[in-house]
Amino acid sequence: MALELWWGSGSPYSWRALLGLEYKQIPYVSHLVSFAKQEHKSPELLAMNPRGRVPVLKDGDYVCFESLAILTYLERKYPERPLFGRDPAEAGTIMRVIAEYQAYVEDQLMRIISAILFQGVEERIEEVERAVRVVESEARTIEGRLAKSEWLVGEAFSAADIAVFPGIQILLRALARREAAELRNRLLPLETNYPAIAAWIRRIEALPGYERTYPPHWRE
Amino acid sequence: MALELWWGSGSPYSWRALLGLEYKQIPYVSHLVSFAKQEHKSPELLAMNPRGRVPVLKDGDYVCFESLAILTYLERKYPERPLFGRDPAEAGTIMRVIAEYQAYVEDQLMRIISAILFQGVEERIEEVERAVRVVESEARTIEGRLAKSEWLVGEAFSAADIAVFPGIQILLRALARREAAELRNRLLPLETNYPAIAAWIRRIEALPGYERTYPPHWRE
Repeated sequence: MALELWWGSGSPYSWRALLGLEYKQIPYVSHLVSFAKQEHKSPELLAMNPRGRVPVLKDGDYVCFESLAILTYLERKYPERPLFGRDPAEAGTIMRVIAEYQAYVEDQLMRIISAILFQGVEERIEEVERAVRVVESEARTIEGRLAKSEWLVGEAFSAADIAVFPGIQILLRALARREAAELRNRLLPLETNYPAIAAWIRRIEALPGYERTYPPHWRE
Repeated sequence: MALELWWGSGSPYSWRALLGLEYKQIPYVSHLVSFAKQEHKSPELLAMNPRGRVPVLKDGDYVCFESLAILTYLERKYPERPLFGRDPAEAGTIMRVIAEYQAYVEDQLMRIISAILFQGVEERIEEVERAVRVVESEARTIEGRLAKSEWLVGEAFSAADIAVFPGIQILLRALARREAAELRNRLLPLETNYPAIAAWIRRIEALPGYERTYPPHWRE
């Protein structure tokens, strides 16, 4: 029986699970869940994840959720094309980069995105200013890392790249909005301000199967 | 050359690294860092972790920080007495419980602790109320899990237990303060309201080496 994945378009966590499955070339049945229709709160999904959140992975009787947990399960079940490192040091550093992103960057990134899309940048200007300063500083660190190496950790695409990539793509999409003109002028163009990050994004976009991970509603 | 660990007394993240080392029975050189003397911001520590945070693990030339990354490194280097699961399903569920704790519980727990210790519960009452409701609901879930099993996931102590335990211990210590009387009456006694969690804490306290992980300044 093939794996099944329930996921939502534009959810960074769903995107991570899709990138993991595609990179490892694991066949899966894809269930695109509509947030607008509240399908992530359907009885079927609540029975698998009481929090009503996607992504959710099902493999026979086994159910897993939370993006990092799904990637961990896939790694242990399908060790080929490893995502969590080839030796202890690489494994530790991959998890360190993921933990740092989660602890110091993700909330700030989401704050900026959410101000642009929902609350208004002007209404939240102090909060957004603080978040932008954090994101700029962390982006410079990532830029430094990617100036020396093709991937965030070691010589191969890994769970560290997967953890960070969707948030950056979603930020870039939010920055393209009319309401984000000022922030956009400050952070972009990416090719000029963060050329190594721009090249890294193109590298991930060129991975086989990437097109299947791209949020479908972004094409509309 | 033995591993070296820099850690701070009462830091939940440091406590995790210590629990991992002790459970795996790995010899290490212990460097207790004084937060009061700002030793975590010393040039020596900033050279290892530019964020100036502990725990930091050093193994020869290799440096690792962020508690979950340290546990990951230890697991890969010393696979005996596994902390991240014995099969793919267990590994996925351990990481799921850790991810859920980090995403939905940890911030709320820290908010309560920080209100008791620093900002005043009355001054922050609405925020604290919200946080307490979340913590109560998550504690009921954990209680349900531990009523059926000795450990949070599977048949053995794991990184899931390690991730959750220090935060709970620090909350219990904060609740013992005079200023926390009302919250204490609501959440405790643990033995009555959450008997399975209380038994689980005693089980962890009975693990060999536990005494060496206990925050030294709590004995003063």
